[in-house]
Amino acid sequence: MKLKVGVIGTGNWGTTLGLLVANNVKRPNVAKYFEEKVTLWGIEEYHSNELLSTIINLEHVNKKYLSGIRLPENLFCTSEISVCADLDIIIVAMPHQFIKKIEDFKGIIKRNCILISVVKGFIDNPDKSITLISTYLKNTFKCKVCVLMGANIATEVAKGSVCEGTLGYEDEESKELSYLLLNSYNYRVTCVKDIPGVELVGSLKNIVALGCGLVEGLGYTGNTKVAIMRNGLMEIRKFLKYFYAESDSR
Amino acid sequence: MKLKVGVIGTGNWGTTLGLLVANNVKRPNVAKYFEEKVTLWGIEEYHSNELLSTIINLEHVNKKYLSGIRLPENLFCTSEISVCADLDIIIVAMPHQFIKKIEDFKGIIKRNCILISVVKGFIDNPDKSITLISTYLKNTFKCKVCVLMGANIATEVAKGSVCEGTLGYEDEESKELSYLLLNSYNYRVTCVKDIPGVELVGSLKNIVALGCGLVEGLGYTGNTKVAIMRNGLMEIRKFLKYFYAESDSR
Repeated sequence: MKLKVGVIGTGNWGTTLGLLVANNVKRPNVAKYFEEKVTLWGIEEYHSNELLSTIINLEHVNKKYLSGIRLPENLFCTSEISVCADLDIIIVAMPHQFIKKIEDFKGIIKRNCILISVVKGFIDNPDKSITLISTYLKNTFKCKVCVLMGANIATEVAKGSVCEGTLGYEDEESKELSYLLLNSYNYRVTCVKDIPGVELVGSLKNIVALGCGLVEGLGYTGNTKVAIMRNGLMEIRKFLKYFYAESDSR
Repeated sequence: MKLKVGVIGTGNWGTTLGLLVANNVKRPNVAKYFEEKVTLWGIEEYHSNELLSTIINLEHVNKKYLSGIRLPENLFCTSEISVCADLDIIIVAMPHQFIKKIEDFKGIIKRNCILISVVKGFIDNPDKSITLISTYLKNTFKCKVCVLMGANIATEVAKGSVCEGTLGYEDEESKELSYLLLNSYNYRVTCVKDIPGVELVGSLKNIVALGCGLVEGLGYTGNTKVAIMRNGLMEIRKFLKYFYAESDSR
């Protein structure tokens, strides 16, 4: 039986991954594993007095978050939570600040579902420890979790520019399926058996990127930007060593 | 007795380091270790019918390789090889393709001199092994060698933009002296006790940088550039593991 795939989140990145996956499942070697229809779940939202889901389904474009990009017709948008009960693989693409809204899906998402989190960031606990989004999802839904991270500008990925992402995984089955689903000629996926490593580097690199942007905005030169990058990477390493000494990417 | 400092190479980077060092030795805490006069040695060269060394000494600017940048008056340029017999610390800033010309200094450079190589690249041997420039210098002159590498555009360093460099060292004395000589408010030096690591990463990163430039020139997006950078760093790591398994930076 073919697997049903969906994306939670109709934002920039969620829609882009919906597009990527909906195109991928049509490819001959991938089509035998997955159903052609891909579900894109988003909260009820309006754009110019029209429901965003209606625009996506009828006009095949996400005018609010990914305007100008034609979406494949096998990408079907809904705000019906019950639709997700059927899904075997779900890409979780909610913005970090709304992540706890995922609990609305409790009792709906199947126990043997595979979740692929693309949520950047982590939950910081009062005792100074951190909880990874992947761990939070695993605890909440008791199912298998992978993470997909990369230095990706959604619009560029959507336009088919050559990009890459890194998949952090724990078990072979979810790795194989996620790889099949996500890897394409333009979007190259590297698999690393180290979820904390991939997830944390994926999140923390954004802080370094912010630093680089600030420095550029302030008129500093490329040398300064590179200094921020190198020191930023060293700090990411320290962070990993402190919180996840067992991580392979430390 | 104060130490005498010099630079071999009047190119872009050699002149910039001459400027950096000549400014540094005037600072109160540094001045007690080094003589104020810094020697810049270059081969006999002409610029608009005038000797380059004469222009540097009289007009305090290297019109050929670092035009528009005012050089400190305590930086003294010469093409007299015998002047180097006196030096205690020499920054070797010859372009890679001319490195073997350094053998002209055999018997002139003092045995207890410290050489700081900023030469990018290495010597590839017929048996597929490589010889580091630092090793070649050490074998040639039997003296202590450090390396200084960084993602530095010479002109930006010369203009005092915030930059950083990494010093690879082997023994504490040459580390301390090199750090004193090179570190400044704008040019931050990090010391790493791993010469092969610093030297090879410093050289190989330029290949990655070329790749990034090509990709930019071809009109690819930032995502693609970042993919080249990440994969390039992975390949540098493999290179280090293969040739210098003992290197700390692998």
